[in-house]
Amino acid sequence: MDLSSFLTSLVTSFLIFVFLMLLFFWLSRKEGNKVVYYPNRILKGLEPVVPGTRNPFAWIQEAMSSTEQDVISMSGFDTAVYFVFLSTVFGILVLSGVVLLVLLLPVASTDHSVKVSTTSNGTFNEFDKLSIGNVKDESPRFWAFVIATYWVSFVTYYLLWKAYNHVSKLRADALMSPALKPEQYAIIVRDIPPVPAGLTRKEQVDSYFKAIYPDTFYRSMVVTDNKEVNKIWEELEGYKKKLARAEAIYARSKTTGKPEGVRPTNKTGFLGLCDKKVDSIDYYNGKINELIPKLESEQKVTLREKQQAAALVFFTSRVAAASAAQSLHSQMVNDWTVVDAPEPRQIIWANLPIKFFQRQVRQYVVYAIVALIILFYMIPIALISAFTTLSELKKLVPFVKPVVNIEAIKTVLEAYLPQIALIVFLALLPKLLLFLSKAEGIPSLSHVVRASSGKYFYFTVLNVFIGVTVGGTLFSTFKDIQKDPNSIVTLLATSLPGNATFFLTFVALKFFVGYGLELTRIVPLIIYHLKRKYLCKTEAELKAAWFPGELGYGTRFPGDMLIVTIVLCYSVIAPLILPFGAAYFGLGWLILRNQALKVYVPAYESYGRMWPHMFIRILASLILYQVTMFGYFISKKFFYTAFVIPLIILSFIFGFVCHKKFYRFFHDMALEVVCRELKEVPNMELVFRSFIPQSLGSDKIDDDHFEDALSQVSRTGSLA
Amino acid sequence: MDLSSFLTSLVTSFLIFVFLMLLFFWLSRKEGNKVVYYPNRILKGLEPVVPGTRNPFAWIQEAMSSTEQDVISMSGFDTAVYFVFLSTVFGILVLSGVVLLVLLLPVASTDHSVKVSTTSNGTFNEFDKLSIGNVKDESPRFWAFVIATYWVSFVTYYLLWKAYNHVSKLRADALMSPALKPEQYAIIVRDIPPVPAGLTRKEQVDSYFKAIYPDTFYRSMVVTDNKEVNKIWEELEGYKKKLARAEAIYARSKTTGKPEGVRPTNKTGFLGLCDKKVDSIDYYNGKINELIPKLESEQKVTLREKQQAAALVFFTSRVAAASAAQSLHSQMVNDWTVVDAPEPRQIIWANLPIKFFQRQVRQYVVYAIVALIILFYMIPIALISAFTTLSELKKLVPFVKPVVNIEAIKTVLEAYLPQIALIVFLALLPKLLLFLSKAEGIPSLSHVVRASSGKYFYFTVLNVFIGVTVGGTLFSTFKDIQKDPNSIVTLLATSLPGNATFFLTFVALKFFVGYGLELTRIVPLIIYHLKRKYLCKTEAELKAAWFPGELGYGTRFPGDMLIVTIVLCYSVIAPLILPFGAAYFGLGWLILRNQALKVYVPAYESYGRMWPHMFIRILASLILYQVTMFGYFISKKFFYTAFVIPLIILSFIFGFVCHKKFYRFFHDMALEVVCRELKEVPNMELVFRSFIPQSLGSDKIDDDHFEDALSQVSRTGSLA
Repeated sequence: MDLSSFLTSLVTSFLIFVFLMLLFFWLSRKEGNKVVYYPNRILKGLEPVVPGTRNPFAWIQEAMSSTEQDVISMSGFDTAVYFVFLSTVFGILVLSGVVLLVLLLPVASTDHSVKVSTTSNGTFNEFDKLSIGNVKDESPRFWAFVIATYWVSFVTYYLLWKAYNHVSKLRADALMSPALKPEQYAIIVRDIPPVPAGLTRKEQVDSYFKAIYPDTFYRSMVVTDNKEVNKIWEELEGYKKKLARAEAIYARSKTTGKPEGVRPTNKTGFLGLCDKKVDSIDYYNGKINELIPKLESEQKVTLREKQQAAALVFFTSRVAAASAAQSLHSQMVNDWTVVDAPEPRQIIWANLPIKFFQRQVRQYVVYAIVALIILFYMIPIALISAFTTLSELKKLVPFVKPVVNIEAIKTVLEAYLPQIALIVFLALLPKLLLFLSKAEGIPSLSHVVRASSGKYFYFTVLNVFIGVTVGGTLFSTFKDIQKDPNSIVTLLATSLPGNATFFLTFVALKFFVGYGLELTRIVPLIIYHLKRKYLCKTEAELKAAWFPGELGYGTRFPGDMLIVTIVLCYSVIAPLILPFGAAYFGLGWLILRNQALKVYVPAYESYGRMWPHMFIRILASLILYQVTMFGYFISKKFFYTAFVIPLIILSFIFGFVCHKKFYRFFHDMALEVVCRELKEVPNMELVFRSFIPQSLGSDKIDDDHFEDALSQVSRTGSLA
Repeated sequence: MDLSSFLTSLVTSFLIFVFLMLLFFWLSRKEGNKVVYYPNRILKGLEPVVPGTRNPFAWIQEAMSSTEQDVISMSGFDTAVYFVFLSTVFGILVLSGVVLLVLLLPVASTDHSVKVSTTSNGTFNEFDKLSIGNVKDESPRFWAFVIATYWVSFVTYYLLWKAYNHVSKLRADALMSPALKPEQYAIIVRDIPPVPAGLTRKEQVDSYFKAIYPDTFYRSMVVTDNKEVNKIWEELEGYKKKLARAEAIYARSKTTGKPEGVRPTNKTGFLGLCDKKVDSIDYYNGKINELIPKLESEQKVTLREKQQAAALVFFTSRVAAASAAQSLHSQMVNDWTVVDAPEPRQIIWANLPIKFFQRQVRQYVVYAIVALIILFYMIPIALISAFTTLSELKKLVPFVKPVVNIEAIKTVLEAYLPQIALIVFLALLPKLLLFLSKAEGIPSLSHVVRASSGKYFYFTVLNVFIGVTVGGTLFSTFKDIQKDPNSIVTLLATSLPGNATFFLTFVALKFFVGYGLELTRIVPLIIYHLKRKYLCKTEAELKAAWFPGELGYGTRFPGDMLIVTIVLCYSVIAPLILPFGAAYFGLGWLILRNQALKVYVPAYESYGRMWPHMFIRILASLILYQVTMFGYFISKKFFYTAFVIPLIILSFIFGFVCHKKFYRFFHDMALEVVCRELKEVPNMELVFRSFIPQSLGSDKIDDDHFEDALSQVSRTGSLA
């Protein structure tokens, strides 16, 4: 890629961005689009737009002037931590950029000794003169690059340290806040041993914890197998929605001319397409009346007979719960294992009863599968595309035959089937990783997201970054690597400069087009308008159509990390990438700040538990960068390359110290944080009720109902 | 070594053993030796000898019939756990031996295909016919040896599992026993942050813990720098002993003829050898009267001004203390770190104030030093012996000149100086390792002993076992290893059979002579009698002369582990070693049982915390054995060698499962164990006082004295 095509690509991206900005300004002013551009404010009961701020750049001003506290109150602590991540990386890239551009560009561009370079497919142009490739082998000018490597590293250490401190404080503030958090009073108990003869599961749990915590134990809730009851409950909720929809259609039909209206009908068969036609309102009412007693009896059966070897235990004080979640309870470590309870809405109930060693086995199996996916994901895709040739497809799905027999479509399909398979795989990968992480037996959703985000990070860094960089050269030089495994570092280092412009374009495209689309929300906007016009009949359906979902930083973060890795690794080799990287994170911070304040609604809150993962991955990128530089200096035959080694060791020490100093507070609750008891005595009944799964809770059902699996102290007092 | 010289060595060892047995029988009957052979019983206020059991083998019968409970009551839980170790290894070797001798000896001895063997320095004799060396390469007979490898492994798994279960139960019983254990009510708090302005250290600690544990916090004790006060206290105690001695001499002189007696005198200078002569009783009385006020004022200064950033915190319940010791207290993980308190007598006070990261650094530095010692210990010894040649010695210590100038002594010294240096090093090594482990900053003595015992284990296994086995061949084949690092396994495997008889003799010598000397206690007996005759004047001095000390399993255990490693590694190659190994542990069990019941007095109690280390090292020996067998089968070109690999994997899985299931209970206190509160309410004042260091405690000193470093709730109640 030469300079002009690079500039063309850059200008194109920028023009698209400007167009998207203008589109956003125009669309967001329309009253009917408010629910798409300000749903978070609407759901919180605020005015969609701050009055008197109707200029096109008002959103920028609002985002810039918003404080961290605003983000926390609008979007929670996890989002605030994500912004710490963005601003930390932004800071690293800006501070590195200022020094590196001033220091390295003159050093590189004034070396006229290299006349023929091998970078950028053999063509040597103005652009490459600004990179390290312009410095001849063994030149003392490499000292400047070594110093630059140190500078980037120290900037990273300093800002990461500050950020870890800050996030730790944020987390502490969140956890000691006076607002009642039910999960701070509960622990999850798993691996409960078999019930002794003569006791119920509930009595077993109660007597065990009452003996240990005579003063602070409040109540326990035995986990039940809710599969059946969930199914019935979902069916019932579905019919309720359909009834509301039918009633809305009926009500609307009344107003338009015919006062008696048209009673809506539907067919009872598959997807409402076949079988006999019935009156919808009567039919759904009948179904609901049929399901309610069924649900109630299933609830009773579940609570009585489907109790599992896991429970939630509630305490009357936060310190007691925090301390209980960290203590060993049973002499046999794999019995009565405890863990702090997550928020009720993010508990994965089905994972709670999985046994200790089964969890271990599941974990290792999942790790093995993910490792295989990362290393060999191309193989199944190739197989799939081989098997799903057109002729195979015609056999399996006969009704596509007339379509694919058209010559033009046939050609396109045959050419693109493997690519389509790859795209489908890459689109499904986050979901697959989420499913695999869930299969590990992790009890909370936020933990599953963290786990799958980690897996996705390794996939992107290994496949996209290293894959593209080393690319085709890897297989041709495979025999060299076999002879000397260390050569992979040198190989990576020598392939880097050639790909600098490719990644420059990649970063620019990603921030101009990616963030432009993010801000404009074109796809959600179109979907909302289509749904509103053709599908939604009730208020609830309409709300579901514009409900924004979460920021999803579990999948955003690995993408950002890819950029961090690319920019860090190229920072010294081609310092021009630094402004682009800084722009990516600066623009990202700005646009996501707007989205966090006005659009997205978080699905759960983990109080910044994601941060240690962010920290360790930034550090991993830094180490990858240092190792790459080491390899690069070696390949350039620079005599003092060994001066980079202390830096790599220093990175490990820095990671070790931070891990030791901060990490455990992100895993366990520090008692000094939770010991500030709330001013009001918490309503323990409320805390307890917030953990009852929707399908088991009911206003009508009296408390006696719960006595089998949801125990109360007063009833079991005689057992202790 | 041929068969006859092997038998000679065996018979000699056995004769020495029989002689020592007879000596023991004769010596232990004498009334004056009772304090040497039965000190533990005497100290516990029991009759030295059980009446009516005066036949020579009574001690065997008593040891055999003693129960685990007897051992616990006479010598504590740690000793009982050591016997579990001995009996487990005994069981492994007996069960392996029965099957392997029956299975392998016929298989090996009936293979007549190998006529010339390379084992045992090229001479082939009857003895080698019984070993695996007699089976020709690629023979299907190796299947029998593979099966034997599996058998030994499964026996080990089974017995280790049973033992871990048993020890875990023992530990639980010990910890839930109704006897008051002060350490169960205390925790050690380290890394206390700087004192905030306006508070004393004591107030800081009290207010911190009262906020977290308003109901269960009892009192705190700030750790002080006791170096100065300890020195004065020791000086005072020394003068008190000397005074008692002088008075005893004076009293004795009165009875013999002269009724007025002779007042003892001493010189005040260095070692009582120079300066003016004074009346001892007056002089020591003067010194004592001078030191008592000095001690008291130093105690006050220490408590007021030498407070450190560490403290002991006491709770009113065992559950509260156990739970506190496992919980994270501070948001910054390296502040307010907690750990469960060891027994008062084993606290290493000087280590408590060492800061968190300093402890980490110390630990890694010590690990590095130990690794260097293990790998390169021969180098400093060679250097020392080079520098301490006779001529150097004469220069440094001129007064040995006349002695070393004698021709005979000169020759001997010159020949043996390097060996003497080695022997001195090996004798000092356990002390050096203990010192290094203490320097890591570990707060309790039993933990230091565990740490140094681990280091000693690696030293012995690496240097004695692998060193002797591979021996001289290692350096000659060093280049082969460099080419192919895997060949070290094969090298180890091929060198094994040649050394079988050497190790057989080694094991036999160790149990016949070593345990014979252990039982006879000749050295302590001689020392006691010499001291009694020439040195001891008072009762206290006499008691100190026969006080037996502890069993010292911290140094015994690595020696035993060396035998376990040797015997396991040879079990399949030369099954004849198994009966010897079994005899070592059987005899060891018997003789040490006698010593534990009658002789040694344990210095501390860790409630079996040593066991996980014993477990993991037996397992490590087993894995070393499996890897060796793998290498051996490869060197014998046995085609199905790969069948050994699953076994190695299985060992790792077994270790992982045991570690996960049992280990944490040996590190942390399980709450279900300590939740059975004592019947009587513990006397917290007594618990607190038991932790006051001797040099700071005094009956005369009133409680007010402690208010600076030893705080009480009632006084600081207003601060919380």
